[in-house]
Amino acid sequence: MTRGFYIGRFQPFHNGHLSVVEQIADDVDELVLGIGSADDSHTVRNPFTAGERIMMITKSLVDTDLVTYAVPIEDLERNSVWVSHVQSMSPDFDVAYSNNPLVIQLFREAGVEVRQSPMFNREVLAGTEIRDRMVDDGDWESLVPEAVVEVVDEIDGIERIQMISDTDSDGDWTA
Amino acid sequence: MTRGFYIGRFQPFHNGHLSVVEQIADDVDELVLGIGSADDSHTVRNPFTAGERIMMITKSLVDTDLVTYAVPIEDLERNSVWVSHVQSMSPDFDVAYSNNPLVIQLFREAGVEVRQSPMFNREVLAGTEIRDRMVDDGDWESLVPEAVVEVVDEIDGIERIQMISDTDSDGDWTA
Amino acid sequence: MTRGFYIGRFQPFHNGHLSVVEQIADDVDELVLGIGSADDSHTVRNPFTAGERIMMITKSLVDTDLVTYAVPIEDLERNSVWVSHVQSMSPDFDVAYSNNPLVIQLFREAGVEVRQSPMFNREVLAGTEIRDRMVDDGDWESLVPEAVVEVVDEIDGIERIQMISDTDSDGDWTA
Amino acid sequence: MTRGFYIGRFQPFHNGHLSVVEQIADDVDELVLGIGSADDSHTVRNPFTAGERIMMITKSLVDTDLVTYAVPIEDLERNSVWVSHVQSMSPDFDVAYSNNPLVIQLFREAGVEVRQSPMFNREVLAGTEIRDRMVDDGDWESLVPEAVVEVVDEIDGIERIQMISDTDSDGDWTA
Amino acid sequence: MTRGFYIGRFQPFHNGHLSVVEQIADDVDELVLGIGSADDSHTVRNPFTAGERIMMITKSLVDTDLVTYAVPIEDLERNSVWVSHVQSMSPDFDVAYSNNPLVIQLFREAGVEVRQSPMFNREVLAGTEIRDRMVDDGDWESLVPEAVVEVVDEIDGIERIQMISDTDSDGDWTA
Amino acid sequence: MTRGFYIGRFQPFHNGHLSVVEQIADDVDELVLGIGSADDSHTVRNPFTAGERIMMITKSLVDTDLVTYAVPIEDLERNSVWVSHVQSMSPDFDVAYSNNPLVIQLFREAGVEVRQSPMFNREVLAGTEIRDRMVDDGDWESLVPEAVVEVVDEIDGIERIQMISDTDSDGDWTA
Repeated sequence: MTRGFYIGRFQPFHNGHLSVVEQIADDVDELVLGIGSADDSHTVRNPFTAGERIMMITKSLVDTDLVTYAVPIEDLERNSVWVSHVQSMSPDFDVAYSNNPLVIQLFREAGVEVRQSPMFNREVLAGTEIRDRMVDDGDWESLVPEAVVEVVDEIDGIERIQMISDTDSDGDWTA
Repeated sequence: MTRGFYIGRFQPFHNGHLSVVEQIADDVDELVLGIGSADDSHTVRNPFTAGERIMMITKSLVDTDLVTYAVPIEDLERNSVWVSHVQSMSPDFDVAYSNNPLVIQLFREAGVEVRQSPMFNREVLAGTEIRDRMVDDGDWESLVPEAVVEVVDEIDGIERIQMISDTDSDGDWTA
Repeated sequence: MTRGFYIGRFQPFHNGHLSVVEQIADDVDELVLGIGSADDSHTVRNPFTAGERIMMITKSLVDTDLVTYAVPIEDLERNSVWVSHVQSMSPDFDVAYSNNPLVIQLFREAGVEVRQSPMFNREVLAGTEIRDRMVDDGDWESLVPEAVVEVVDEIDGIERIQMISDTDSDGDWTA
Repeated sequence: MTRGFYIGRFQPFHNGHLSVVEQIADDVDELVLGIGSADDSHTVRNPFTAGERIMMITKSLVDTDLVTYAVPIEDLERNSVWVSHVQSMSPDFDVAYSNNPLVIQLFREAGVEVRQSPMFNREVLAGTEIRDRMVDDGDWESLVPEAVVEVVDEIDGIERIQMISDTDSDGDWTA
Repeated sequence: MTRGFYIGRFQPFHNGHLSVVEQIADDVDELVLGIGSADDSHTVRNPFTAGERIMMITKSLVDTDLVTYAVPIEDLERNSVWVSHVQSMSPDFDVAYSNNPLVIQLFREAGVEVRQSPMFNREVLAGTEIRDRMVDDGDWESLVPEAVVEVVDEIDGIERIQMISDTDSDGDWTA
Repeated sequence: MTRGFYIGRFQPFHNGHLSVVEQIADDVDELVLGIGSADDSHTVRNPFTAGERIMMITKSLVDTDLVTYAVPIEDLERNSVWVSHVQSMSPDFDVAYSNNPLVIQLFREAGVEVRQSPMFNREVLAGTEIRDRMVDDGDWESLVPEAVVEVVDEIDGIERIQMISDTDSDGDWTA
């Protein structure tokens, strides 16, 4: 039995993430999706709470054969202990998937196997693109699984991200 | 669709917890199991990491019809924001299940419906009892689901808890 | 102009505290009441929030001639920086009032003048006594200013502390 | 009896804030002024400590008929629990005043009534403008209440902000 | 070249610690002394600051041939990342020395070699004994290196610990 | 006996730092080198851990006559208590050395003597310059003591900083 670990902020979970999961599914029997910056929400960059992202992921993957776990990972703001933190929060895993150079470096220094794929980079851009479209009333729905559209609707997510994006640029809430 | 929330430390997940889940299954369509003190581990009271407890819960409930989510909840050490913290980490829920007076009080002050049951109290005792048996080489296996026995074995959990229990009583690791 | 600083948890603000304030009023023109453990609430030892304690203090002292400030001081859990923390949160003060040996020692090491009085000790006991009476439906009302009775009633404080006191002794909210 | 809540960083408290308070005074009997980022100080953006800001506010409002409370609110860096945090630190309030979109969104999601006014926006700019003038030896005194000039003088605030503004742009104190 | 790591709270550094260091000196070329609970001070259990303990250790070992490093290690209160935290704060080491079961378990799970010795246990008791004698004006000087007596004198350490020990038992500084 | 305190991030310790230490050596008998942002590592700005920086400093100063201490100082993110924090972590010192305006201001407000020198400013630039050269495979070796080259080699530091510098600009590790 092989278990993989795939870290992302999933703001929101989108078709790029879904493709990556499907690609990883060929390699592993089970996959942990680590929801990074779990304690952050209500910002333009991290509009959705960890709980909302769990819903997006779980409902989007309901028909996947792969056994998956969606696990919130709160920020520790200390790179040197980040791998240990992840390992304590997640079911034990054999291989980590990432294209982020820092994540790769941290896992490697800790002796954890890391795999990359050409598909990862594209998704990095997509998160920003989708949030921009949400703010600008553009077509974001075509870039995410149907289940994500439902979750965003249910929580009035578009109203939230549009409201937040009006806040002054440093994200400070007081004058 | 009704979703419930059931908080516990699940150190370890045992037959009492399982009974409670089965009982709640009559009320709700989906259930979130909030893993409290998720950031604590390697103590006599909290021997297992959040990741290990996710495994115990998920594997024990694999044959349940209920849709379940196992969500680690790190301690915030601030009762006044605890409900908001839980709500941000968990999929949205309609009703919380607890027999713990503080939990009930906090949810009530926040306007969240709470339900109790006679079965809850018994389990409170069981956690301590099972950990004591683990330390003393007693029969703990009969009090937990088979999947939990497997997880504990896989991580050498008995060796860990026995080792830790030798540490001086204030749990301090230095002389 | 002389300004004093008087630190307490004020759980709740009671007649002993009031006497101390009246006594200090002979020495100073203004008095800061630092509300210690401001981030703690909903425990038997610290049942009331900082906001609730601000109300108790402000309303109890409304007829005092003394200019007073009620300032919440969150715990930093680090004795060596505690005085600096207090000084940053409080209007500047000339003298601190306390009978607590640790507080006295910390202020002295920082070069702040500290004054003691025979009345302080009695009040230390009173906080516990009043909370015990609240739990046991005893007469706590006679030990606190009328304004405190009103605040406690308004927030259903007795129900809260009685509920919380049923929680198992280590104050842990999960099984 | 109606109590309002008005959040700001008040770096420093200025005539714009004063106008807002006077405007709110028509609506409420009591007003809590929540001092945001209370734990931050000695930066160009947040030059003054919470204690210094309490002084500015209290002395500026001494002749106001309104009953006011100046309450420091430390940053929690977690939007999802921010409203609960504020509610625990502040006397209970019926309505919050803000023009900041994030603050409005957070209070609304928590079911708290929020009111806006055309005057709020102007003040947002003023804080930066006044701090710039302090750094550049410009006329900042005409933009703040007389009491604020006195507090700033007493603490050598101009020397502090000018000194700090020489620090390299990322506010880092070490080479 | 072999470097060892020896963790302790060193409250204060005493002859038992010194013997352990001398014993380890036969095994290694360099030794890191990790000062645990570095952020704690001014309590009966942890009376001295990290800086004071650095002085005690450095001056006591000045004539030792061994190259030593005294490194403060702040508490992280999270056992699962403790080894990573220690490794990031300390020069790289090949072997850890401890008789504390939790420390041994944590290092072992992280794959770090740990060595024990019969001498360690004795010292565990000594820390408490020495602090008790300091409080009771007993003979503590004969149990510590001469350099430690000098440091304690210089900082008025006996006055501090005696003052602190009068504080009520739960170490709480407010009434 | 005079002891000085010299704060820096030492990312890495370089010839500019070494010159400053040699210059200070004329004034003091002992010198504490406070390693700022000790808890930060694996970023372009702070590539090396506290432990690695202790090695760089200690090995670079091994032939200096001055008695030196290398002490990690974790960030507290609260300027108002920063001096107290430093004082608790460091052996007691008589004078602080810095050219950073914020550091100077904080020490002065706390009544600590601060000395500046023309040499300090040059080094501020050097840290960035050296890290840039490390990233770009330039000649960084000529700007640091030989011992630092050895430490960086031993930990594969160039690979680390080059890997990290590929991470997207906001230093965020997740998509």
